[in-house]
Amino acid sequence: MSGELFGPIFVPGRFREAVSGRAWVRAMLEAEAALARAEARVGLIPEEAAGEISRRCRQMDPDPEELGRRGRAAGNPVPALVKALAAEVPEEAARHVHKGATSQDITDTAAMLVCREALALILSELDALCAACARLAEEHRGILMPARTLLQQALPTTFGLKAAGWLVATLEARRRLREARERGLAAQLGGAAGTLASLGEKGPEVLREYARELGLPEPELPWHTARFRIAELGGALALAAGTLHKVALDIILMAQTEVGEVAEPSGGGRGGSSTLPHKRNPILSVTASAAARRVQDHARTLYGALAQEHERAAGAWHSEWEALSESLALTGGAAAAVREALEGLEVDPGRMQENLGITEGLILAENVTTLAAAHLGRLKAHEMVEAACRRVVEGGGSLREELLAEPGLREVLPEEEIDAALDPARYLGAAGEFVDRALEKYRREG
Amino acid sequence: MSGELFGPIFVPGRFREAVSGRAWVRAMLEAEAALARAEARVGLIPEEAAGEISRRCRQMDPDPEELGRRGRAAGNPVPALVKALAAEVPEEAARHVHKGATSQDITDTAAMLVCREALALILSELDALCAACARLAEEHRGILMPARTLLQQALPTTFGLKAAGWLVATLEARRRLREARERGLAAQLGGAAGTLASLGEKGPEVLREYARELGLPEPELPWHTARFRIAELGGALALAAGTLHKVALDIILMAQTEVGEVAEPSGGGRGGSSTLPHKRNPILSVTASAAARRVQDHARTLYGALAQEHERAAGAWHSEWEALSESLALTGGAAAAVREALEGLEVDPGRMQENLGITEGLILAENVTTLAAAHLGRLKAHEMVEAACRRVVEGGGSLREELLAEPGLREVLPEEEIDAALDPARYLGAAGEFVDRALEKYRREG
Amino acid sequence: MSGELFGPIFVPGRFREAVSGRAWVRAMLEAEAALARAEARVGLIPEEAAGEISRRCRQMDPDPEELGRRGRAAGNPVPALVKALAAEVPEEAARHVHKGATSQDITDTAAMLVCREALALILSELDALCAACARLAEEHRGILMPARTLLQQALPTTFGLKAAGWLVATLEARRRLREARERGLAAQLGGAAGTLASLGEKGPEVLREYARELGLPEPELPWHTARFRIAELGGALALAAGTLHKVALDIILMAQTEVGEVAEPSGGGRGGSSTLPHKRNPILSVTASAAARRVQDHARTLYGALAQEHERAAGAWHSEWEALSESLALTGGAAAAVREALEGLEVDPGRMQENLGITEGLILAENVTTLAAAHLGRLKAHEMVEAACRRVVEGGGSLREELLAEPGLREVLPEEEIDAALDPARYLGAAGEFVDRALEKYRREG
Amino acid sequence: MSGELFGPIFVPGRFREAVSGRAWVRAMLEAEAALARAEARVGLIPEEAAGEISRRCRQMDPDPEELGRRGRAAGNPVPALVKALAAEVPEEAARHVHKGATSQDITDTAAMLVCREALALILSELDALCAACARLAEEHRGILMPARTLLQQALPTTFGLKAAGWLVATLEARRRLREARERGLAAQLGGAAGTLASLGEKGPEVLREYARELGLPEPELPWHTARFRIAELGGALALAAGTLHKVALDIILMAQTEVGEVAEPSGGGRGGSSTLPHKRNPILSVTASAAARRVQDHARTLYGALAQEHERAAGAWHSEWEALSESLALTGGAAAAVREALEGLEVDPGRMQENLGITEGLILAENVTTLAAAHLGRLKAHEMVEAACRRVVEGGGSLREELLAEPGLREVLPEEEIDAALDPARYLGAAGEFVDRALEKYRREG
Repeated sequence: MSGELFGPIFVPGRFREAVSGRAWVRAMLEAEAALARAEARVGLIPEEAAGEISRRCRQMDPDPEELGRRGRAAGNPVPALVKALAAEVPEEAARHVHKGATSQDITDTAAMLVCREALALILSELDALCAACARLAEEHRGILMPARTLLQQALPTTFGLKAAGWLVATLEARRRLREARERGLAAQLGGAAGTLASLGEKGPEVLREYARELGLPEPELPWHTARFRIAELGGALALAAGTLHKVALDIILMAQTEVGEVAEPSGGGRGGSSTLPHKRNPILSVTASAAARRVQDHARTLYGALAQEHERAAGAWHSEWEALSESLALTGGAAAAVREALEGLEVDPGRMQENLGITEGLILAENVTTLAAAHLGRLKAHEMVEAACRRVVEGGGSLREELLAEPGLREVLPEEEIDAALDPARYLGAAGEFVDRALEKYRREG
Repeated sequence: MSGELFGPIFVPGRFREAVSGRAWVRAMLEAEAALARAEARVGLIPEEAAGEISRRCRQMDPDPEELGRRGRAAGNPVPALVKALAAEVPEEAARHVHKGATSQDITDTAAMLVCREALALILSELDALCAACARLAEEHRGILMPARTLLQQALPTTFGLKAAGWLVATLEARRRLREARERGLAAQLGGAAGTLASLGEKGPEVLREYARELGLPEPELPWHTARFRIAELGGALALAAGTLHKVALDIILMAQTEVGEVAEPSGGGRGGSSTLPHKRNPILSVTASAAARRVQDHARTLYGALAQEHERAAGAWHSEWEALSESLALTGGAAAAVREALEGLEVDPGRMQENLGITEGLILAENVTTLAAAHLGRLKAHEMVEAACRRVVEGGGSLREELLAEPGLREVLPEEEIDAALDPARYLGAAGEFVDRALEKYRREG
Repeated sequence: MSGELFGPIFVPGRFREAVSGRAWVRAMLEAEAALARAEARVGLIPEEAAGEISRRCRQMDPDPEELGRRGRAAGNPVPALVKALAAEVPEEAARHVHKGATSQDITDTAAMLVCREALALILSELDALCAACARLAEEHRGILMPARTLLQQALPTTFGLKAAGWLVATLEARRRLREARERGLAAQLGGAAGTLASLGEKGPEVLREYARELGLPEPELPWHTARFRIAELGGALALAAGTLHKVALDIILMAQTEVGEVAEPSGGGRGGSSTLPHKRNPILSVTASAAARRVQDHARTLYGALAQEHERAAGAWHSEWEALSESLALTGGAAAAVREALEGLEVDPGRMQENLGITEGLILAENVTTLAAAHLGRLKAHEMVEAACRRVVEGGGSLREELLAEPGLREVLPEEEIDAALDPARYLGAAGEFVDRALEKYRREG
Repeated sequence: MSGELFGPIFVPGRFREAVSGRAWVRAMLEAEAALARAEARVGLIPEEAAGEISRRCRQMDPDPEELGRRGRAAGNPVPALVKALAAEVPEEAARHVHKGATSQDITDTAAMLVCREALALILSELDALCAACARLAEEHRGILMPARTLLQQALPTTFGLKAAGWLVATLEARRRLREARERGLAAQLGGAAGTLASLGEKGPEVLREYARELGLPEPELPWHTARFRIAELGGALALAAGTLHKVALDIILMAQTEVGEVAEPSGGGRGGSSTLPHKRNPILSVTASAAARRVQDHARTLYGALAQEHERAAGAWHSEWEALSESLALTGGAAAAVREALEGLEVDPGRMQENLGITEGLILAENVTTLAAAHLGRLKAHEMVEAACRRVVEGGGSLREELLAEPGLREVLPEEEIDAALDPARYLGAAGEFVDRALEKYRREG
């Protein structure tokens, strides 16, 4: 559908391929092959048949759209795929194709294989993104800039600490995705009703071998309508996407013309405008933001699909496939975009310093009050500083001038102490230490 | 992405085509052509250039995916499309391509054209669906069945009334989509910042002609970041999808093996199962349910995109394109599936009648109480009937037997009155009249 | 729950009261009273009983929480309320309480009454908000400021046009809510299964009188599981909330320390900070943004509740009550906050002008190119201007200087023409006309 | 707001209290007390002042609504609370109240304390629910019933396996909530901009002591705009709620009049209806379903709030408070309801057995085919059995009769083998073993 046009704008090719119809079909065939081999191993079907099936599964490359069209009658593409597979192997092997499995076994297992592949790609982006954050945090550990709360300048901070914040959040998002990959996946095999009835007594044995063939964990039970795995994946992707959105949002805000503290890497015409030659749009962050928003709503679909009826659901299951695929692709796209933005980020420490000055010292009023309070008591100090601040806002001078012009303050705070109090570099608190803690966490978590 | 495999399961070809990348590109070219013609009409560019541009726009058929890939740098496919178009027309015309427009003008206008086309298809499905509901309501006006509340049998109703309820809801959903099509669409043209500055004084004139060329309403203002149109469309589609979901859910529930009151049309292997030959899955309703669920979450994306920054947004706008396309396609798919299900619905009045009897008359306890109360007072009547009901539930007989065995009741209610009270056909209240009201509404709204 | 603490931060008292448990109970009693009167009018119950019931309904004031606790067994508070009401009227009247109605009839009707009341309050806020937008648009029709796309300065615009954009969007949101109030509400009365069976032949008559008593439209059919009314309300509220969010977002962005073009009204300590005396947080917009976000998700609940089973739903219906109440309250809160912010908005035209200058003329590059192209051809003009822009960005001068230093340009564009091209006031396109169109729409729609 | 009326229907008192405004205020005061003690310990404020502050924090009980109203100017209730606290301690101590903290430090820490408390309550419900599932699985390990896929009878299964499926899903939901409680919480302390600047060099030391005082983990960094903790909590609650919804849905479906396999515990008038004396509504499951739906949308709010601006957000943060509170309360309510439903569930093995028979043997067609295929080849066997099935569906006899009447089958399958094949108890596959695996997991995870 419209994805062929818009997909590439948000999602690089490798992610689109990983969740493509072709990739799903390949994974379904991998599941069928593993099933045949598992059944041969426990003696349910002949080794030779399993070999034939396995071989064809590797070689076949049916058209996904055609399978989809033929799958409309059954509500999923597996029966059409099984039919195509059976038609390709010798008669003797054909009767052993898909033995004991239900369509959902193959689709769910394929979903797990698709997730495993796509998660690996996403994690690799996040690794690079963490590295970029760490580098920024380290290199700009002492670079001063205004901290902003509710988008108002509040106090000085460092760009290193901002990057450290991104780093810690991304590490947490990565941790969740790693967990999802390591313990959230599982093979699916339950047969028509989750009892593996048509495999007789060999059911559990086949399940074990099937999982082993696929390199997927064996589930305690078939999970046809116990969808915690899918919902958790959706949640982990939404967490990652939301985290990427936060970084993208910070970049967009710092890149504003009036702020100008960072710019995304240009080159290749990126972010430019033919009619507006001065523009430098933070287009990587913008597309990441768009992708991330959509992941949140796909996750809602997946959580909403937890309530599935009886032994197999009438709609909720079917709503998962594309929501999951899109979540993987869009999270991958957002990760790639933010990673690229940070790897090439142009940081302008001069502009940060300049922005620190635009309140004419007000950004350090808290510090002056604290110092004065030691001499004057909190109440009197607060009154004096606040009055000075008000004069700055209304009159347009600097806080330094107003403080020096205040006899009550001059008495207790000599000029050099006032200057020290107004030096943002001396009012950074634990910023440096926090950067170090983030970097340590990064090194610890590899 | 995975849509090529799963799309056809939920969405018939005509809907997928209507929102395809190709359809979007065609609509974008239509917008560019209309712009050139409009500008020629007001004398901003030569007629000849407009003719050349217009002609090429009709003939070009660029690869959507390639445009998407080249659009990554700008965050949308329009600059790449404009470049391709300019390369195809003579030098003299090339300089007049896309004059005064911004990428969003072309994309938003294309979205409106895509919506117009897709809405027409959806509305045609809903017309047929309303007709099917009306026919069912009319034909089964007197067919008795149990009404169920909280999935428990409550009182008798008719299948005609159930269909009438679907009809009224579908008429309302259709009304909203009609409104959306009639007054929710608009051309988009604002130039880089919504002022049409580069068109000088001719801006409003060009806007008017551009809208007229496209057959789209002219907006009061460019709506680059005033997205009520898009959100309302999303809401109207979510309303339609949810309404379709309700019908699908009723079908699924009535088709249960233990209820068996309706079956979806089979044929073409639909709903069958090779290993379970007795199954008759309500697969049209199941796929409609899946599609409808996803539309709800796409609508969430569109409502969430209302908050767009300043004159053009940094991400929210970009999140709309696929959410809107998918909403249109999935609503269309759900409508087609439910329409097909109802057109061929196999209704089993015998089974409905049978189900009415499984509570052994309890389903009419309310009626008996009401009649007895006229003689005995409400309190005493209630006590007696409730006691009889309890004996039925515990002992397993029928309510009729228990009522007849109750001397206090026999005295005031002769056997034939008891029988009348236990006749579901006499306890339908306004069911018939409500069916007529629904049918009248249907005829009124055409 | 936590609403008692956090509610007042986002929602003024009048909105909280309009959707309070007490308001719901009052509306439920109003429905019971109307039912009794309607039944008396058609001769189903004695006038005297209706009078007694009606009187008690006006006087009673039961504790909502107690009703809720007692309603847990039935899954809704109506049975407990009916019991309390019956206990308060004389024996003779008691047996006529709630006759023929089901709990959902009373709850749904109460929902409509609560909506009617709350919508009136919201609409009154939106009226005032539209007036504030219109005033801003009119007063600042010629006040120049930078238009920003993707948060980058793009071209000049006017603050009047920005306000006009808010105005048009708010008018549309208001229109939807007006429609919802005018045609989206309806009385609910269907009895246990939507047939009004226990009212015999008088059902439709009672329904008509009941609706008339309540001043609510009469529905074609009972709508126990046809929930388009509720979903449409949810959608209309989400549209309004999202529109308010857009305005709030613009205010927040313009109020940034580095932009400083507007400030929210202070006074009463609003937006201040005891430790950071220079801060002026746009707190009205911030709370509006928070409220609006939540409305979107409540709307999702309401759309998701469209799929209700059979004649009365098993959960979806129950999920609507608080989602609807909260949507009303939070939309009201957001409307009140944004209205208050705009009514007292401090606009700083000087800062806007200043911001227009920070790109040193680059913001008008498009205009210069257009003018030069008339003499030099598009290509050459673009090259020259782009080169000049690049020198400004890299070297730090102004575009004016660079243009004047460019002999090829000087030849065709005299200094005064360059100055004219760099005058933002001469590059506003249709901004003024668009403001007028918005104001005209405002006056038209009253 | 409406929660006072509707809250108690979905949420038992202990959960409402745990997230009440009062509980939040208590937690905020606990945070202030811990801060004072921590600062005293590291020598920043006098021990005596800390003692005074701590003591007042334990004793104060301000009205939450009043705090909310006074908090409107600041956008949160903390400044009003701090003012009230400062007014209650001696002058000397007052100046040390809230030292170095920002409102968000106190609010976020309170959120964590509220979560800790509420999670403990939820986990205790889930413990009891797991026990109830385990008991049902164990006791009904061999109780036959139909497995249903797409709500159609598919094959035999056991009620034990169904309960085992619930058990495994609930164990996973519990695991996630345990993890959330154990590693997802953290103290919050960052000061105005996340640097702890006003604490000078003692910042990290204070943070450590503060966390220790509260018994909360110490975060690597202040997490003012790194909201993974909150989003993960939201996700874990949505997972639990969705899981509870699945169990509730199964109960509702099995409790249908036409299915009748289980009934919720009655007593106390629960699920009854005064006018419909035969009804037995599964009201616990219904309210659980309603609560669970809303949790999904609150989780969407929390994931959507991940994208927070700079060092403190302008709206997203504020949207979390009630979404989180409601998620906790509603998940608790759903857990309590489902737990109660399962603890008292009335299971009707006779009805399950009866339902197994309503397809007249078709439910075992797969088994017959498999057996016949060994003698006749898959194709021929399938043809014969399918034909027999068709005759049953169309003619109304039983599969047994049709199979016995088929000479080709009789030859290879003697009557007793056909009877064996049609015995559901012999076609359960691994059902028993899967039950054991679930029970083992339960015992393992305590």
